[in-house]
Amino acid sequence: MNLEAKNNQYLINGMPSSGISINDRGLSYGDGVFRTFLVKNGVAQHWTLQYQKLSQDCQALGITCPSNKDLLKDLQIMFDDGADAVAKIIVTRGEGSRGYAFSDKIQTNRIVIKSAMPVYPSINQTQGVKLHLCELKLSQQKKLAGIKHLNRLENVLARMEWSDANIADGLLMDSNDNVIECTMSNIIARFGNELITPSLDQCGVAGIARARIIENATRFNLAVKIEALKLDKLMQAHEIIICNSLFGAWQVVELNGKQWPKQGLDAQLREMLLN
Amino acid sequence: MNLEAKNNQYLINGMPSSGISINDRGLSYGDGVFRTFLVKNGVAQHWTLQYQKLSQDCQALGITCPSNKDLLKDLQIMFDDGADAVAKIIVTRGEGSRGYAFSDKIQTNRIVIKSAMPVYPSINQTQGVKLHLCELKLSQQKKLAGIKHLNRLENVLARMEWSDANIADGLLMDSNDNVIECTMSNIIARFGNELITPSLDQCGVAGIARARIIENATRFNLAVKIEALKLDKLMQAHEIIICNSLFGAWQVVELNGKQWPKQGLDAQLREMLLN
Repeated sequence: MNLEAKNNQYLINGMPSSGISINDRGLSYGDGVFRTFLVKNGVAQHWTLQYQKLSQDCQALGITCPSNKDLLKDLQIMFDDGADAVAKIIVTRGEGSRGYAFSDKIQTNRIVIKSAMPVYPSINQTQGVKLHLCELKLSQQKKLAGIKHLNRLENVLARMEWSDANIADGLLMDSNDNVIECTMSNIIARFGNELITPSLDQCGVAGIARARIIENATRFNLAVKIEALKLDKLMQAHEIIICNSLFGAWQVVELNGKQWPKQGLDAQLREMLLN
Repeated sequence: MNLEAKNNQYLINGMPSSGISINDRGLSYGDGVFRTFLVKNGVAQHWTLQYQKLSQDCQALGITCPSNKDLLKDLQIMFDDGADAVAKIIVTRGEGSRGYAFSDKIQTNRIVIKSAMPVYPSINQTQGVKLHLCELKLSQQKKLAGIKHLNRLENVLARMEWSDANIADGLLMDSNDNVIECTMSNIIARFGNELITPSLDQCGVAGIARARIIENATRFNLAVKIEALKLDKLMQAHEIIICNSLFGAWQVVELNGKQWPKQGLDAQLREMLLN
């Protein structure tokens, strides 16, 4: 186990453990879903939304979602020191024998992982971030689109495309040059008083931070459209934001050879998302 | 653990163990590959081809492949009783902390699982099999096409489409109505003295049984074409065969409302594949 991971803490189905069965279908097939979010002073941030999304994702795959009560109990046990930390929840369909079919008696495995708060370069907030334009094109699968499932090889391969530590994330498109998301964040573009974020009905992960920006845009006097967004159009945006539940929001100031001046929407959104 | 899986035996990196780290990227992201094959009298069947494919798949994902020597030693330890059994090898990129990036010091985890010989209905050989035509359409991702990787949610969802025990497998197409494969097998269609098997450069898994049929077709006075194959054309085939390394080959005698008379190619191919 690597050094960083060594300090993690784990609960499997409510019991301390750092190992799962080799027969878990999460390993065999990526047959499960996950969530990653902040816990501050022992409180899971925006838990209602996180649990709602976890339930929806489980339902979409026909996986029995753990109860809200069991997960809250896990989080309470794990984060009772009151320190700020990151929680990751993995829910797998459970353990099975060889083959894609599974028994109707299969039992979900729920895994909770506690890890340290991530440390991001402060200039990501003060000066904005640079994106890599990924060569890999996301495949389109409407039955998996939007779901934060465990089949993430596309993200892994895309993330392997750059090693420059000054690049914060990689922009992913589908094979039709539609902008979709970044490897670990969603993307939102501002054109005047309108935000456009790509529709995620064919590929991509619909994150909670994106949902909260859509929900709260009027606070910032912004309208929101969810629609197809071509790269050409994105490059004409007045401001581009990437977002997730850990870093909140950052402005993109460099992409595909073009630079944008640093503006202020990211700070407003970050304030809303992280507080 | 379910009853069937309880009798399995496991080696992780050469040591007996039935659990893997929660930090294994095989679980987090499906970041790994696998192989499944027969072991007869302690001998891994067609090991040269199996290891070659494992190496190719690892290389395609930038995963360090375990050495042939280590894997052969694992297999020797595990199958020294000389009984016939099934071996499954899973190779994951290794353990990592949160995030898609990984250290250049990451170490592959190799998992070997021994399980009992599968028991298939004898009528699959004597009378042929029925296929379900899957509603799910495979997504197209040329960077993953052909590879037997751990991102298998499409197969899982496709397999959930039927529960009739008389259906042997499900036929998968891509979104352009190209026939690709079945959930656990490859497909080959005979038109006169010519076999056609779908090209797998956009999706699907290129199995060893398929490769061996292509390689040995001349033995049966058959030519082979690897090309796009539409469902309409498949339905006009004189004979349809599905194949994998465990059951060998079966003839499809019912698909999408059409029936085919039982013929003899499946038995010839099975004889070649399983002996």
